Amino acid sequence: MQGDLQSEVMVRVRFSETDPVGVVWHGNYVKYLEDAREEFGRQWGLSYRYISESGYYAPVFDMHIRFDRSARVDQWLKVVCRYHPSKGAKLCFDYTVSDALDGTLIATAETVQLFTTKDGVFEPSAPAFFQEWKRKMECPEEDG
Amino acid sequence: MQGDLQSEVMVRVRFSETDPVGVVWHGNYVKYLEDAREEFGRQWGLSYRYISESGYYAPVFDMHIRFDRSARVDQWLKVVCRYHPSKGAKLCFDYTVSDALDGTLIATAETVQLFTTKDGVFEPSAPAFFQEWKRKMECPEEDG
Amino acid sequence: MQGDLQSEVMVRVRFSETDPVGVVWHGNYVKYLEDAREEFGRQWGLSYRYISESGYYAPVFDMHIRFDRSARVDQWLKVVCRYHPSKGAKLCFDYTVSDALDGTLIATAETVQLFTTKDGVFEPSAPAFFQEWKRKMECPEEDG
Amino acid sequence: MQGDLQSEVMVRVRFSETDPVGVVWHGNYVKYLEDAREEFGRQWGLSYRYISESGYYAPVFDMHIRFDRSARVDQWLKVVCRYHPSKGAKLCFDYTVSDALDGTLIATAETVQLFTTKDGVFEPSAPAFFQEWKRKMECPEEDG
Repeated sequence: MQGDLQSEVMVRVRFSETDPVGVVWHGNYVKYLEDAREEFGRQWGLSYRYISESGYYAPVFDMHIRFDRSARVDQWLKVVCRYHPSKGAKLCFDYTVSDALDGTLIATAETVQLFTTKDGVFEPSAPAFFQEWKRKMECPEEDG
Repeated sequence: MQGDLQSEVMVRVRFSETDPVGVVWHGNYVKYLEDAREEFGRQWGLSYRYISESGYYAPVFDMHIRFDRSARVDQWLKVVCRYHPSKGAKLCFDYTVSDALDGTLIATAETVQLFTTKDGVFEPSAPAFFQEWKRKMECPEEDG
Repeated sequence: MQGDLQSEVMVRVRFSETDPVGVVWHGNYVKYLEDAREEFGRQWGLSYRYISESGYYAPVFDMHIRFDRSARVDQWLKVVCRYHPSKGAKLCFDYTVSDALDGTLIATAETVQLFTTKDGVFEPSAPAFFQEWKRKMECPEEDG
Repeated sequence: MQGDLQSEVMVRVRFSETDPVGVVWHGNYVKYLEDAREEFGRQWGLSYRYISESGYYAPVFDMHIRFDRSARVDQWLKVVCRYHPSKGAKLCFDYTVSDALDGTLIATAETVQLFTTKDGVFEPSAPAFFQEWKRKMECPEEDG
């Protein structure tokens, strides 16, 4: 595999993303994870746009987030998205969200995406464009 | 005009819509207004879906909101959307947001929508489907 | 246990909650789950407000969602939130999101909340108000 | 006045901020405006935090946005927030949102904020901290 298949983004917590307790509302982390996943897509040639132009969508099928600490307005967060090799027709990523200055861990997460055609029908085997991408990235196939 | 061309919805303030001050974050009112406008569309035959199937989009071009009071988590709001007759190729609505129980006024707003083709080109004259709708509703043409 | 400790809400999908694919953006389900959990709180005496007035917060610590189907604008969803009895200082819920008309399953989820003091310090043993609530609800203690 | 009292931020459009038409949902611009206003606050000593520590909130009282063009996923936007001097107890800003690469204008906006005490009571005359800030910034008093 081409070294580490991962990307990172820096996100600054918006006032509108914090809740009455004064911390980031937990649902907003889904946006931060997607920011990092989209950056991965741009950097490694697997963007939403590219998948769409290949005739597919890749909806999130499974999402699991664990929150270790809370984050506050103006705080800079570093979100890292790592590709997790897996068999078959799915796209798996692991994430860490941490304080960008001191590295304190804030949350960890995993997502699994499946492929559907533009009509919304699930694609049980890996689409050609995805097989090609895995070859180019020299991805091993691991259980996931 | 067919009596009052207006619709209303009841909206309950979500925890995630409130900010660190404990009140609804002002940007969330845009959703409440759209809830009432979509209800208007369903009730009076001018829904997003119908406009889209007629070959057009109706993007918001101008939005003006005045906030009189703040709203809190769990509060029930009544949002009223009134059609405001106007000349030409635009769709104008007035809104009031008030406490659903005691009627206290919380916000007032106006929006103006223009028409574009599916390619995003502005349509300078009223599309046929909209002229037809105005005839059916017996709308006078007023300046707006 | 007092019959089934569960609550349900009906949610109508907003235009602003759908994405370029025309379906609900997956992060918006977090709001639907919270709608049902807040309804549970109001119905069974365990609301955000009550917990807060007891001197605690109950931040979400773990959230897991599986998406079976997509939902579209205007669709009515039924969200059911069930209390899942567990040992110790945590609050566990299971959820189902389904089409409100034909019952088709759209998503399932689980959340785990822990307790913190107002200063954000984790509370390792069940707060008195929560023990009292469990007694009143005649909750068995199960592993979870 | 200290040259131009203005600040700018760069914002990249998120997938989750776009709607079924494939463009930024209009309500999301409220977040972009706030991003620029918060940057102004940090840069010129008038942040949400500072206002709050001075014993006040500054809720948005009036917001007016005009949309000239739509923006798409991944597009970089430049949002400029300019302080607009005005008499009395209000805080006025003008905004432009434009394409960060070619400068095409996307939206313009104005907001007016008033001051309230922490109990939510409107403050009819300019709080001391705000008068002090205006002196430091050598702001003229203009009608607004």
